[in-house]
Amino acid sequence: MTVRALILAGGSGTRLWPLSTDDRPKPFLPLSGKASLLRETHERAARLCGESNVLYSARASHAPHLAGEFPGLPAARLVLEPERRNTAPAIALAALAVADEDPDGVLVVLPSDQAVQDADELHRALSLAVESARSGDAFLTLGIPPTRPETGFGYLEAGRETIPGVREVVRFVEKPPLADAERYAVSGNHYWNAGIFAFSVRLLFSEMERLCPDVLASMRAAHAARRAGDDAAFEAAFRACRSTSIDYAVMEKARAVRTVPSSCGWSDLGSWEAVFEFRGGADGKSVLSGPAIEEGGCGNLVLAGDRPVRLLGLSDVVVVDAPDGLLVMKRGGSDLLRASVEKSLAKGRA
Amino acid sequence: MTVRALILAGGSGTRLWPLSTDDRPKPFLPLSGKASLLRETHERAARLCGESNVLYSARASHAPHLAGEFPGLPAARLVLEPERRNTAPAIALAALAVADEDPDGVLVVLPSDQAVQDADELHRALSLAVESARSGDAFLTLGIPPTRPETGFGYLEAGRETIPGVREVVRFVEKPPLADAERYAVSGNHYWNAGIFAFSVRLLFSEMERLCPDVLASMRAAHAARRAGDDAAFEAAFRACRSTSIDYAVMEKARAVRTVPSSCGWSDLGSWEAVFEFRGGADGKSVLSGPAIEEGGCGNLVLAGDRPVRLLGLSDVVVVDAPDGLLVMKRGGSDLLRASVEKSLAKGRA
Repeated sequence: MTVRALILAGGSGTRLWPLSTDDRPKPFLPLSGKASLLRETHERAARLCGESNVLYSARASHAPHLAGEFPGLPAARLVLEPERRNTAPAIALAALAVADEDPDGVLVVLPSDQAVQDADELHRALSLAVESARSGDAFLTLGIPPTRPETGFGYLEAGRETIPGVREVVRFVEKPPLADAERYAVSGNHYWNAGIFAFSVRLLFSEMERLCPDVLASMRAAHAARRAGDDAAFEAAFRACRSTSIDYAVMEKARAVRTVPSSCGWSDLGSWEAVFEFRGGADGKSVLSGPAIEEGGCGNLVLAGDRPVRLLGLSDVVVVDAPDGLLVMKRGGSDLLRASVEKSLAKGRA
Repeated sequence: MTVRALILAGGSGTRLWPLSTDDRPKPFLPLSGKASLLRETHERAARLCGESNVLYSARASHAPHLAGEFPGLPAARLVLEPERRNTAPAIALAALAVADEDPDGVLVVLPSDQAVQDADELHRALSLAVESARSGDAFLTLGIPPTRPETGFGYLEAGRETIPGVREVVRFVEKPPLADAERYAVSGNHYWNAGIFAFSVRLLFSEMERLCPDVLASMRAAHAARRAGDDAAFEAAFRACRSTSIDYAVMEKARAVRTVPSSCGWSDLGSWEAVFEFRGGADGKSVLSGPAIEEGGCGNLVLAGDRPVRLLGLSDVVVVDAPDGLLVMKRGGSDLLRASVEKSLAKGRA
């Protein structure tokens, strides 16, 4: 049976200014401190289903970054979006490509704007999800046990165990208020929704027919145009599709979703605070990267660029020196950063 | 009578890292917020004695910066030092050039690593100093009334008034301990020594014959070689001279020194704190230069370069974005900065 992985190389974020920009979003940055997040996601996907079965979706304008990361990548393994349409259209396109080969094939969806500490544990969980998806009777999703009362993520509420290591998903929960998040953090039945899925493409199509037939129809047209080599028709069909996420369009309303809980040290690296923590920072313990000198302070995150950075007499500060700008911020100031960047964007400059 | 001004374009300082470097020291930087300090000093000198009477001394390696600031400057108005020898040799060389024209000429010495708020008041004081220097019976020096108990400057102790606006200098005082500095700040008889002098070149030569004949002899040899167009002999004579300051070699031991007190808003811009204050900064009041955005903080000094700088949620911080490095420092951390840069220099990197 065909198993393929689709890596979503989209995503942007004003909360990671100045490193993450519209031109070079998170997946293309070495935010975890090693390779780019995209490269790390690629390694996981290749381990799961073999390198030749890994597909990539990205905005067309980011194709040069992809080519730079994976020289010689065949066009057939690339889903280039002429415009942003969120995740559902790109996933449907990849699923149609899988179905060409095997109507009962399995597609694994891996966002590449995140990182994990424990690649072996993630591999175990993904393997179990793929195995469980084969039967085609449910969508599988990874569930991350919460380590804090996070209000910025969506949650899965889990029910009974169906087989060892797999639980039913009772419902999807949107970003909760703090009181709920605090309850979820200790309930044992709530997981962060990391956006990592595995499913039979046959199941996807049947649920899309029921829940969002317009999206599937647009993507069938786009897929046919693509196979016929008609770029203009492909682009027109893709642009004609509405923008919607796989969570909203399918998963939240699907008949059967199950989750594989996995404590793999997952992080969305969604803010400088998250990057700081993922890389081992804590109060009193700094994270320094590049030519950085810190004296008379602690608990800092310094991501230096090419030039030496000196941070003197300050604690709990974030310094990010990037080609597009320089950030100096009190740690925990992510909301201030987002508001500031959005204000500048509204004025036409970031 | 000939009046010429010598602008000293030397000086460096680890306390202004990363903007001031050995390659581009203070005089070539727009630290006061407008033109370069050198350009501002040039304007003052030209106002005093006419542009064609302004001479410049600098290290030979900085000649390109001078040429950039003053295109077409004749070589005769340049004193290029093949190696640092402090101020006495360069001043003697310039004085010898003045004497060629007029043995009773007056030379005004203006360091260009400083700034003033009130150019008119400085001009008044310099004019009085030049006028008083004509007779050749005393060195004239500017005296800056202290505005704080500064322990980093040398002081002049003044005696009786000789003519209105001019006082005798009883003695020079090296950088004092705090208790003395506190006394000087309120005595009414102590002034900061800004290193700004005016004197008859005849007086300079007679005092150098008495106090440092070796320096004068070396510079006579260098001057003769220069007039003869023998660059190699000039360099050899200059290098053979010992390094010594005009203060130590002459002024502190001279028979007669007088001071013109002047509250011209003088600053040595010797640290980021001094730059902050000179440019109007105070607790609660920031100084921002270049494409800088500050939110959720105050009392900051931000000198941005080409790239946008965002300073969020922090107060009383210095951020300097320069081609050679990036400084992020708690305000008042000058000693930490100096120690840090010196440590790096000792390791062979700044």
